[in-house]
Amino acid sequence: MNNWEKNIRRVVPYTPGEQPNQQDMIKLNTNENPYPPAPGVAEALKNIETDALRLYPDPAAKDLVHAIAGEYGLSDEQVFVGVGSDDVLAMSFLTFFNSEKPILFPDITYSFYDVWADLFQIPYERPELDEHFHIKKEDYFRENGGIIFPNPNAPTGVSLPLDEIEEIISHNRDVIVIVDEAYVDFGTESALPLIDKYENLLVVQTFSKSRSMAGMRIGFAMGSPKLIAYLNDVKYSFNSYTMNRTSIAAGVAAIKDQAYFHETCDKIIETREWTKQELKSLGFSFEDSKANFIFASHANCPAKQLFQALREQHIYVRYFPGGRTDNHLRITIGTRKEMQTFLDFVKEYFKKENLWKF
Amino acid sequence: MNNWEKNIRRVVPYTPGEQPNQQDMIKLNTNENPYPPAPGVAEALKNIETDALRLYPDPAAKDLVHAIAGEYGLSDEQVFVGVGSDDVLAMSFLTFFNSEKPILFPDITYSFYDVWADLFQIPYERPELDEHFHIKKEDYFRENGGIIFPNPNAPTGVSLPLDEIEEIISHNRDVIVIVDEAYVDFGTESALPLIDKYENLLVVQTFSKSRSMAGMRIGFAMGSPKLIAYLNDVKYSFNSYTMNRTSIAAGVAAIKDQAYFHETCDKIIETREWTKQELKSLGFSFEDSKANFIFASHANCPAKQLFQALREQHIYVRYFPGGRTDNHLRITIGTRKEMQTFLDFVKEYFKKENLWKF
Repeated sequence: MNNWEKNIRRVVPYTPGEQPNQQDMIKLNTNENPYPPAPGVAEALKNIETDALRLYPDPAAKDLVHAIAGEYGLSDEQVFVGVGSDDVLAMSFLTFFNSEKPILFPDITYSFYDVWADLFQIPYERPELDEHFHIKKEDYFRENGGIIFPNPNAPTGVSLPLDEIEEIISHNRDVIVIVDEAYVDFGTESALPLIDKYENLLVVQTFSKSRSMAGMRIGFAMGSPKLIAYLNDVKYSFNSYTMNRTSIAAGVAAIKDQAYFHETCDKIIETREWTKQELKSLGFSFEDSKANFIFASHANCPAKQLFQALREQHIYVRYFPGGRTDNHLRITIGTRKEMQTFLDFVKEYFKKENLWKF
Repeated sequence: MNNWEKNIRRVVPYTPGEQPNQQDMIKLNTNENPYPPAPGVAEALKNIETDALRLYPDPAAKDLVHAIAGEYGLSDEQVFVGVGSDDVLAMSFLTFFNSEKPILFPDITYSFYDVWADLFQIPYERPELDEHFHIKKEDYFRENGGIIFPNPNAPTGVSLPLDEIEEIISHNRDVIVIVDEAYVDFGTESALPLIDKYENLLVVQTFSKSRSMAGMRIGFAMGSPKLIAYLNDVKYSFNSYTMNRTSIAAGVAAIKDQAYFHETCDKIIETREWTKQELKSLGFSFEDSKANFIFASHANCPAKQLFQALREQHIYVRYFPGGRTDNHLRITIGTRKEMQTFLDFVKEYFKKENLWKF
């Protein structure tokens, strides 16, 4: 090693889900929405004043903040926006988790939490989910440096009822509690109504899933004006201009079309519930997902084997090797047609390999 | 203060330049390019496949990295991209400046450096520029935890010759040296040729100035494959998907139009040199700027007074109160017509206030 390498921050980086790019693929591996963004998004991008791209964007992204605030019945001071919810969460870790006591998050959860904790040298502990992948709220009733969990949880899809979330918050008035609601729009009750009651609660959401805009990188946080101000101070100390002009314009257009948003979410929920029935009839077992994915295992077919068989057909799902989740696949809910193709293949494969009695 | 506020990271945030938005304004305050982006950028945005915005962008932004590498005669492994050069620099501070020894940067320089150092709790020392705002290279020939300076420097516009830069690097083989070349395309020799010789040298540039794309947020770093890999590891641990689909497409289009790029830079350089003559005839003094701005003071008119008089006419320049730069204005080079309007106003104002003999 060279001398100049000695003081470089060394990390084990997060490995993002594979982003294959084939014409004929069925992409059920990174929880994207199978439907395009609201029609107004195309219109907004078409109308971008390209000459104005020479100018900096509004560093406060006021138009987008205001549109989100309006949609959720908040004041602008209660909303923070960033380059995807990963940016919002990274800023939140940096801003809020500065205690010497460990922060708490589940042993099975979004795989970025420990990466951020390691990056910023934040101590952490990971209470175990129960055998049904449920969060045990009592595990969070103890001294800590902050709490974060997704609701519904990823990659399990399991939701925590709002009253249990409130119990966790009410036991943790002296630290910041972050509820990561990336998948909340697919059927989980949001903790948003609690932000007026608990100044130390931050609710994080994203345009990447329910609003079909993973490609635009827009995430947001909602909380008390005090929390949002602290977050903005750190953001302005890191990168003042994070949201480019196209993100702001496209984001505003997306948030304004509530009819399209609800229609899309409803279609995905319907396809998810149908897919659950089909998976059951093929012998899969899984907890009741409230997200746009199902985290399933099969008694007769190792997850890794099925993952690879699917992959050869250009059907991509996500496989997390190792630990308690080793025998599971996380299957994103695509269109009904995509799910039918996926299920047809699995059925044929099980027949061929003699893995399941039909 | 509430208990939950006790472990929040507190920072004095960077104050970005004001972004006024009036129809009739002349905006010479944040070093934007007065010319629109290359024509291909509008075309690229028009052709964005909006349905594909539902999908994550390529986390490695390979198309953009490859286009930049091609333009500068590098391999893809020597290029890193981020959300403006501020993002690239923030990631670089986080990645490379982890020594307990202080990093070094000039007392008068880009006002974000100390903000990042404070944010990441990096110790720093600030050697003084000489009385002509020149970097004294010998100040950097001592033990340190890393070095960063802009070339040309901001807000002074003063360049450091390449041989002096190489002397600084050759005295600092055990730390990372970052040359921040945000304004290099307006007439300063780049340190890029040195990256093959010095694995510990990082050169940072941006699309915000010479490529007229402040509104898209695209910055990049060039260095040895080792340096770039370390930077990518941290980036992937912070936010895997920073560059949205529109940035990647627009960035590729911009970098490909070299004729337009050179034409635009040449026009700005020409207007700058003309503006220097005009400012001199009005009694201003300034060092010889190689950037797209001039950092000027006037013996008879306090900078603050002129700043405010200009502001009332919706002519915006930048004023940095306090310290050695208190009596200076940083005037961005706009179009010839804009500069003429600016100069005409100053002339009239000086006459009216009896500040200068014509």
